[in-house]
Amino acid sequence: MKAPTVTAVAAFDVGGTRVKAALVDVGLQVIASVTVPTPEGIADDPATALKPVLEELIDRAEEGVKVVHVGVVVPGLIDDESGVALLAVNLGWRDLPLRQQITDGLGLPAAIGHDVRAGLLAERRLGAAVGAQDVLFVPIGTGIAAALMIDGHLLNAQGWTGEIGHAIVDPSGALCSCGARGCLETIASASAIARRYSAVTGRKVTASDVAALVDAGTDDAARQVWAEAVDALATVLSTTIIATGADRIVIGGGLVLSGDTLLEPLRRAVGARMTLGRRPEIVASQLQDRAGCLGAAVLAWNSYS
Amino acid sequence: MKAPTVTAVAAFDVGGTRVKAALVDVGLQVIASVTVPTPEGIADDPATALKPVLEELIDRAEEGVKVVHVGVVVPGLIDDESGVALLAVNLGWRDLPLRQQITDGLGLPAAIGHDVRAGLLAERRLGAAVGAQDVLFVPIGTGIAAALMIDGHLLNAQGWTGEIGHAIVDPSGALCSCGARGCLETIASASAIARRYSAVTGRKVTASDVAALVDAGTDDAARQVWAEAVDALATVLSTTIIATGADRIVIGGGLVLSGDTLLEPLRRAVGARMTLGRRPEIVASQLQDRAGCLGAAVLAWNSYS
Repeated sequence: MKAPTVTAVAAFDVGGTRVKAALVDVGLQVIASVTVPTPEGIADDPATALKPVLEELIDRAEEGVKVVHVGVVVPGLIDDESGVALLAVNLGWRDLPLRQQITDGLGLPAAIGHDVRAGLLAERRLGAAVGAQDVLFVPIGTGIAAALMIDGHLLNAQGWTGEIGHAIVDPSGALCSCGARGCLETIASASAIARRYSAVTGRKVTASDVAALVDAGTDDAARQVWAEAVDALATVLSTTIIATGADRIVIGGGLVLSGDTLLEPLRRAVGARMTLGRRPEIVASQLQDRAGCLGAAVLAWNSYS
Repeated sequence: MKAPTVTAVAAFDVGGTRVKAALVDVGLQVIASVTVPTPEGIADDPATALKPVLEELIDRAEEGVKVVHVGVVVPGLIDDESGVALLAVNLGWRDLPLRQQITDGLGLPAAIGHDVRAGLLAERRLGAAVGAQDVLFVPIGTGIAAALMIDGHLLNAQGWTGEIGHAIVDPSGALCSCGARGCLETIASASAIARRYSAVTGRKVTASDVAALVDAGTDDAARQVWAEAVDALATVLSTTIIATGADRIVIGGGLVLSGDTLLEPLRRAVGARMTLGRRPEIVASQLQDRAGCLGAAVLAWNSYS
């Protein structure tokens, strides 16, 4: 055991398939990090399941570390204030007093939060939203989620803010997992783009394959599927921006790895819908898949200090 | 002059055609009120223009009143924090330091704000949003505006929150005053409903005439124009609710005087789009055209205490 020379928080981004964890100092520098498959026992006893991950982090650190606080972020319906995970389907939780269990099980005070909301806090501290007061953060991957900050205040609404993936764009469109038809997610998520291209062409692809075909400029099906995704995104994002007044949109998740193939037409389509109001800057996430874990660290430090 | 026995604020809701003014005590009881045509000089010197209105209020009060603070709300782009009216086209103001001018001209400390945002504060204190934390307030009249409160925080975004009247519903629709096509306002405002019915039938009507024809159930044009307005409203309101997490919608303005003719189909249409998330309660404003003036009183008392 190394003598403690650094004070840090332990940050966990707990997803349905992986846990990204890190020890993070007060300047949000990462001292040690590890990504592991989500432990089996997470549904029944999250603290016990995360304990070995914490031990591995401490082991990996080059210096001795004094861990003063824990931050845990998860997907689903999370009430940051009460510390309760109301519903996290991927993790098997319903009305779980997560903050209490983590605090008791790890013997450290804990903050808990929503992965996307926490990701926005991290982008604002270190990434693509530095200096912004009114921001919409939209990770696009298997699904589409969002977090909103207005007047520097991160909106929560008891966990309900940001479910834009289920805004209905085409009432006669494809059936969504939520039971509605034509949700944004069924048209513009990375998985929807791949699925829709496959449905037209019979070829099995990923969204990044479709983006490459769009760049090549020779594939009409790719162009069409992509344009429909951009148009659906522009419809929902522009209404959200006009309603809330946000003037920066940070796009995250796997889909933004396609860069300007996504961002350029999206800027044009949103811009065309913003005759009145501030035209938002639309930029790529800078923290990408580290946003959630760094956000957990921000929550932990905010709660510690 | 009566000896002062009551302490009050002077509240002004300054519109393009009328000023509604009142003396309001700390319990938000109206001690005296008056509505006058908007004074000619308002564009050049709002304090001097409002001074006679204040004097008339004091004169009308049955008891002597000590006025301790002023609240002024106006339409347009208002930065509540800085007290500057950035743009109020109807009043001829651009970058006007309104709070400073009112304070200097009336010799009383003043708070200024946006008429719709202040209206929401009043509905929350006295009206249809009592007890709610996450509220969307939507007055529908000549235009359509909105105010949003999430987590009990009134969103401002430097004055840009709430311009849902200019969310685009039908990109190939009618030209809006803002330069875009198919804004919500061109389909679902009271004036748009009247105009669209007149365009189909050649008959000159008001929106309340159209509502009466819908109630009578025998006029297909009325039914069609009304249904399109409800559908456009449901599209924009549901996306706004899903994005922000608000769970109460308070409809105000002249159009809600049609009551369940508007609210019932709107509840159905919004409900059908909320497969995921909290189904919002949709209710009528209780304060109606007094919301702005009472909101000005709330701002004044908040700023005083």
